[in-house]
Formats: sequence, C-alpha cells, structure tokens
Amino acid sequence: MKKSLKVLKIGGQLLQEQDRLEALLRDFVQLEGPKILVHGGGPQASQMAKQLDIPVRMHNGRRLTDHRTMEVLTMAYAGLNKQLTARLLGLNCKALGLSGADNGCITANRRPVGEIDYGYVGDIHKVDTDFINSLLNLGITPIFSALSCTSGGELLNTNADSVATQIAVAMAGIFQVELYFCFEKNGVLRELSDPNSVIEELNEENYLNLKKEGIIADGMLPKLENCFQGINQGIRYIYLGNEKMLVRNSKSTKILSS
Amino acid sequence: MKKSLKVLKIGGQLLQEQDRLEALLRDFVQLEGPKILVHGGGPQASQMAKQLDIPVRMHNGRRLTDHRTMEVLTMAYAGLNKQLTARLLGLNCKALGLSGADNGCITANRRPVGEIDYGYVGDIHKVDTDFINSLLNLGITPIFSALSCTSGGELLNTNADSVATQIAVAMAGIFQVELYFCFEKNGVLRELSDPNSVIEELNEENYLNLKKEGIIADGMLPKLENCFQGINQGIRYIYLGNEKMLVRNSKSTKILSS
Repeated sequence: MKKSLKVLKIGGQLLQEQDRLEALLRDFVQLEGPKILVHGGGPQASQMAKQLDIPVRMHNGRRLTDHRTMEVLTMAYAGLNKQLTARLLGLNCKALGLSGADNGCITANRRPVGEIDYGYVGDIHKVDTDFINSLLNLGITPIFSALSCTSGGELLNTNADSVATQIAVAMAGIFQVELYFCFEKNGVLRELSDPNSVIEELNEENYLNLKKEGIIADGMLPKLENCFQGINQGIRYIYLGNEKMLVRNSKSTKILSS
Repeated sequence: MKKSLKVLKIGGQLLQEQDRLEALLRDFVQLEGPKILVHGGGPQASQMAKQLDIPVRMHNGRRLTDHRTMEVLTMAYAGLNKQLTARLLGLNCKALGLSGADNGCITANRRPVGEIDYGYVGDIHKVDTDFINSLLNLGITPIFSALSCTSGGELLNTNADSVATQIAVAMAGIFQVELYFCFEKNGVLRELSDPNSVIEELNEENYLNLKKEGIIADGMLPKLENCFQGINQGIRYIYLGNEKMLVRNSKSTKILSS
C-alpha cells in the first residue's frame, strides 16, 4: 500500500492573521508522515503594489500581471515563503521554501494571449515528483509559493489552488495523497448564512445535483470543479475547511470519488 | 585528495547591471564541478525601503535593521534569490534558492545590543554542511541570500561576505574550497587611481607590510581581514576581482596562505 502524503494549501488572507496562522502551523507540524505546504499571498502583493503606486488590475478574479507587478509578486511571495519557512523551523520542522524555479521543480507555460493578456501568468506543465520525493526522503517539508517558472527561466504567477492541486495529482503516483484547502469558511455550506450548515461529504454526483438545485453556486463552483478534476486524477481525498481542520475535530467538507 | 568546490559571492550592485550580471552567470554555469552562489541585495533593499517611506539607517556601513526594515529586506533578498534561481534554470543550471532558514542550514545569533542596537542582525553560528553536501550530491547548485535564522525561527540580516566566507570555511572540511569575491574593482589595487595596478598574489605577510606602508587602506582592510580569517580556517584560495574573474583570463588578486 502507498504511504500517505498530506498537502495543505493556505491563502494569503490567513497569512495576515497571526494568531490563526500560528495555531494552524502548530497543527501542521504535528501531522505525522511526509507533508507539503502551499501558500498564496495575493492580499500582501496587492498591498505592496499599492504602496509602490503600481495599479492592481484583475479580470474574473485573476491578476493581470505586467513586468513590474511580477517583480512585486516575486518579492511578496518569496518573502512570505521564507517567513513561513523560518516560523516552521522555530516549531522544529525542517522546512524548505521553494518556487517552481528551484531545481525547475514546477515548470509552466505562459498563458497565450487571447481576448485578455494576463501577462506573466503561468499554467503548470510539469511537477518534478522525483525531486520533491527526494526532499521528503531527507525528512524535509517543502513549502511552495505560487511562483512557477518556464523552462527558459521566466518566473510566472500561478494560482495557488492550482499549484496545490497539481502537486497533489503528481505525487499521487507515489503516495496516497490527501489535500487540505484551508479557507475562510467551515466547509462547503448548504446555507451561506449558516456557518454550521457544512456538507460533510461530497462526491461528483451529489455536487452536480446540488449545483442544479442552486444550493452550491458562485465562487464555490470553480473551487469544486478544480477539486473533482483532482479527485478524478488520483487524489484520494480533498478536505475544505477553516484553520482548525487539520487535527481538531472541527467540521469540514470531504470530497471523494463517486 | 578532496574534490574542488567553488563559492562565488556577488554584490547587490552587480545585480542591478543586467549585461554584466548575465555575462557572469554564463561564466558561472560553465564552471566544472560543484559550486555555490552567494548574493547580496543591499542597494535593492534600500531602494525599496525608500519607496515604502522606511528610513534607511546605517552605522559603520552596517544596516540598522528594525522590524519593518527586516520585512523589506526579507522580500528584497528572497525575491532577488528566486530571480537568480530562475535565470540560472534558463541557463540549464539546476539551482536551489536558499536562506539560512531553509532546513535550518545557516543558524545565527542575534547580535547583542552594545553601544549600538543593530536590531535584526545576525552573526553566523553554524552552517549545516551535511545538508549542503547532500544538495551538491544531487547535482544541485545552492544559491544563498544574506538571510540567516536563529534556531528559534527568527530571520536575521547577515553580511553577504560573511555568509560566503562561513559557508566556504565550513565546506573546507569536505572539499578543497576556492572562494571568489566579485566586486567593482579588478582586484586589490596598488594605486587606487590605476585600475590596472592589481596585486596578483597576497599572503598575510605581504598584506601586513602593504597595510603598514598605507598602500592597502580604508574599505579594503575589513574585506581582507575577513579573507585571511577564511584562509587561516582552511579555505584554499580566495580571489577578488570583477565580473570577468571566473573563466576569462582577466587579472584578479589571489589570496593564499603564507
């Protein structure tokens, strides 16, 4: 039987709330077995861009990333990455802060210009599982920011949910992978106004029914589409929940195959 | 006989000059055998601090590093680090961008407050040679910024010359180490006004004589004191020169034991 690997993705918003972040990191280091952390940093990058008078431009929730914006993103993401790495070291977790450029471990293609030119935005081409596995075998916990890289050496901005999912899918060839998306809600909710109305299990069939009934809608749709793509490509389970999801028995939504 | 290891240190000034940097990186990737790159980023950090209205305060050429300054330094250094890593990937060099926090590989102690409180400034305590050697054995080229870390997980600002020297000294237990300091001059000069008056070889005895005669003075003194400390702790050779020093037969100063 394959060994278990846990992949945790945290968003930039959580990185701004020190107490909640600290609690989550403490839970993370206590997870047994090999594990990987993936983080965003959008709010921090936007804040820094504003301070530097660089306009923040978005399209359908995705950042239009020109050259100067990419420089700021690189600093913000890489800086957060090293801060997280240092904090984990302080919790006795030997972590290694990585971008896709490191050892070329997440290569991506720049998104072709269509109606919209997203600029320096990348779609993941390949995750180097051998390299990541060799780090895990050394007892190292990899920490990934949302920076990918072309094979030609150009850093690209990539959605952190996609980075986490693609790492989890790639590593599913070696491990039984559980992917945890830590976000602002307690899970996928049946009633948006009721934070306790968490749907505890969701397979693709239930999902399509709940979508048809309008119970799952809006921003959850792309998130869940991404999850079911991951499940259909070999991720064992995906969990969506808040920062207490890892080791305390708080509710969360478990996504599994039909 | 020990295998050879080359350690190259480049300053922040060179990182701002794209053509010179590109030429040096091309030479660097052509070096045979295991190698390590160490970089500064002081000018970039200062520029960013100014844009963010954070005052830049120095004492004897060292930065007074308060909390906000350390946040900016972390972003600037870590961002430059990932940019260099990406550029080397584009030159087919599998590089890994590191800080001292990564796997706890360069731990430091925060400098005690004396007459001056330098803030988040660290003096190196230990370099994890096993970890660095395991990366080199995987064919990876480590790229270090000037960020060190306490064992408690606090990032610290450390002089990049010291980082390069301490890595070279530590690795001298395993390798025959050559350390290259790439800076703005062609080497140690006999006449400051004559860029061609490079002193081609220098041991401690020559150095002390030239210092007594006033031929070597000012900013070169701490740089060379640092070099001879490194030589006395096992570094085989240290070279000081410009960005052409690595593989083209340009003049440089070779520092060696007496």
